[in-house]
Amino acid sequence: MKPDFAARQRRLKALVQKSGLNAVITSDPHDVFYYTGYAGLKDDRIFMLFQDSGRPKLFVSPLENDAASKYPDITYIRDKDDFIRQLGGFKRMGYDERTLSLLLFRAMKKKLKARLEPAGKIMEIPRIQKDEFEIAQIKEAIRLTGDVLQNVGGFLWGNSEKQIADAIEIEYRKRGASESFESIVCAGKQAAFVHHKPGETLAKAKAPVLIDTGCIVDCYCSDITRMFFTRLGPVQKKIYEDVKQIHDELIYAARAGVTYSELEDLQKKLYAKKSYTVLHGLGHGLGLSVHEPQGETLAENTVMTIEPGVYIKGIGGVRLEDVILIKKKRTEVLSKDIPIF
Amino acid sequence: MKPDFAARQRRLKALVQKSGLNAVITSDPHDVFYYTGYAGLKDDRIFMLFQDSGRPKLFVSPLENDAASKYPDITYIRDKDDFIRQLGGFKRMGYDERTLSLLLFRAMKKKLKARLEPAGKIMEIPRIQKDEFEIAQIKEAIRLTGDVLQNVGGFLWGNSEKQIADAIEIEYRKRGASESFESIVCAGKQAAFVHHKPGETLAKAKAPVLIDTGCIVDCYCSDITRMFFTRLGPVQKKIYEDVKQIHDELIYAARAGVTYSELEDLQKKLYAKKSYTVLHGLGHGLGLSVHEPQGETLAENTVMTIEPGVYIKGIGGVRLEDVILIKKKRTEVLSKDIPIF
Repeated sequence: MKPDFAARQRRLKALVQKSGLNAVITSDPHDVFYYTGYAGLKDDRIFMLFQDSGRPKLFVSPLENDAASKYPDITYIRDKDDFIRQLGGFKRMGYDERTLSLLLFRAMKKKLKARLEPAGKIMEIPRIQKDEFEIAQIKEAIRLTGDVLQNVGGFLWGNSEKQIADAIEIEYRKRGASESFESIVCAGKQAAFVHHKPGETLAKAKAPVLIDTGCIVDCYCSDITRMFFTRLGPVQKKIYEDVKQIHDELIYAARAGVTYSELEDLQKKLYAKKSYTVLHGLGHGLGLSVHEPQGETLAENTVMTIEPGVYIKGIGGVRLEDVILIKKKRTEVLSKDIPIF
Repeated sequence: MKPDFAARQRRLKALVQKSGLNAVITSDPHDVFYYTGYAGLKDDRIFMLFQDSGRPKLFVSPLENDAASKYPDITYIRDKDDFIRQLGGFKRMGYDERTLSLLLFRAMKKKLKARLEPAGKIMEIPRIQKDEFEIAQIKEAIRLTGDVLQNVGGFLWGNSEKQIADAIEIEYRKRGASESFESIVCAGKQAAFVHHKPGETLAKAKAPVLIDTGCIVDCYCSDITRMFFTRLGPVQKKIYEDVKQIHDELIYAARAGVTYSELEDLQKKLYAKKSYTVLHGLGHGLGLSVHEPQGETLAENTVMTIEPGVYIKGIGGVRLEDVILIKKKRTEVLSKDIPIF
C-alpha cells in the first residue's frame, strides 16, 4: 500500500484555487511529506511551493545533495535571498503562519510584490481525514507502543522516571521506531504534574506510575497514556475509576458529525459531576504530527486521541489516553489492544 | 560546579540597557535555560521576558503545573491573548526573530503599543563564550559520544545505516544521554550526500562508513564526525588524507582574534589547492544548541566544531569533525581522545 500523492495534490489544488491564491508556501516537514513523500533529516528545512496549477516544487539546501533522487522537482537554495528570488511572479501568495520563520517572512514582505496571506489552514485541511494507508501506519505505531509498554511494564519498580523514559526509547529503537515526543513518566505524586519532565524519582510498587508515550515509525505517530500499579489505595482507586468512566463516555460520544466543542461541553459536565476541574484539552488529532488539528466538526476517518486526566497536588494524577478513528456510527478505538487495567 | 545565573543575567542586562530597549522577549528554550536554569519537556513552549531592570520572568502553559517549583517568577498563560496582555507597559521591546512564531508576532504587533525590534543577537552574545561549568558539560557530552562510537564501531559491518543509527541512540540512552540531532550514517557511496538520512544501505567492510553524531547530556551537546573502515582504496585514501590535512590546518589556524571569514578564506584556499569545492560551512558554535553562533571574531572560550568534508558522487565522501575550545594561543581539541584512524 502506498500513499496516493496525486489525489492529495488534487485536494490541495482545489482549496488553493477556491481561495483565489496563486500559490502557497510552507516549511512544515509534515505538509511537505504529505503532499510529496519527501522526507529529510529531522532538522533539515525544506520548502514547498504549491501553485494553483497543482504541482508542488521543493526547495532544499545544497547539503541535501541527494534530494533530486527523492523528488523530481528540486531547486537548491543557498540562502534566504536566493530563495526569495525564486518566489517572484505571484499576485497573491499564501504562507503557513504556524511554521514560517519571522526572519524569512519579513524578508519576503520586503522583497516580493505579492500580497502575502496566512494560509496554513488550506494545507492542513486535507490532512485531517486519513486515508487507508495512513490508518494502517498509525495502527502500526500504536502496535509498537503497546509492545514497548508491555515490555517496559516489567522493568518499572525501583527504577527512576528518567531510566524508564530511556528504556522506552531503547525499546522503540530496537523495533526501528523512535519516540514521537519526549516520554512523560511520573512516579507517584509526580503524576499531579501534567507535563512532568522525567527525573530522579523512583517508581515504587505502592504508588502508581503514569506513562504518556508514543513513537514514530515510517513518519506516522502514536500517543498513548497508561497507568501502572500493583494496587491502588481508596483515593487513587476512586480517581482512577472516575477518569476511566469519563474516558469511556467521551469515546462513546465521539463520532462523525459531533463538534469538538460539544465534546468539550460534555467533558466539563462529566468533570463537574465529580467535582474535578478540567486542566487540559480532551484530545487532539494524530498522524504525521503528534499534535495536529482534528477539525471542529469531527469527520469520518479523522484520527484523534481522547485523554481525560485528573490531577491532585500531593496525591498524584491519573490520565488515560487512547487513539480513536472517527466513524459515522460507532467510533473505533485503535489502541484497544493495549490493556487498561 | 553550578552555573552562575546571576552573572549571566548581569551580562544580558548590560546589553539590554545599552540597546535602549525596555525589555526583550524570547521563546528559545536554550536562552531560557541559559539565563534561568529552567528546563521543561522538549516540546514545551516557555517564554522569558527580560526587563532592563535585570530580572527574568517566565511564562508557561498551565500544563507545566510544577513550574513554580523550578523557578520563582512564573506566570501561567492560557493562550496567546492572555500572554500578550501581560506584556503591556513597555515603550521599546526586543524580540527573538529566530524563534518567535509569526502568529504570535502578528498578534503582538496588533495589540501592543510597544515598538517591536528584532533583538535575538542580544540574547545570543553572552552565550558565545563558555564558562567553566559549560566547558565541563560539553566535555562530558563528547566523552559519551567517543564511548558510543567505540562501542558502535564493533557493530557496523553487515548492518544497515538505519540499524547503526538506532544502535547509536540505544547506546546514548544506556548512558543517560540522547542524540543531539538525528545521526547521519552513510555507508560507502552514500557518503557523497552531506545530509543523508540513514537508510537500508548495508555497511560493508570494503567501503568506509561516515558517522556524524552527537548527544545531549544535562542540556549540553556534542557533535563529532568519524570515518570507519577496514582498508581504503587509493582514491579514498587520497581524499581521506587531504581532508585530514585541511582539518589539521583549520584547527591550527583557529584561535582567539582570528575571524570566521579568515578561516573561510583559508578553507577555500586549502580546498582549491587540491581541486575540491567547498560544499558547506567549516564549523559552528556548540553548547546548549548543536548549532549556535560562534561570533565573527573568535573569542577565547568559544566552543565550536571544525568539519571539513569532500564529497564525490559515485565514489563517496569524507568528513572529519572535531570540537575545539578557542584559546589565545593554541586552541584545545576537546574531542582529541576520539581517535581519527
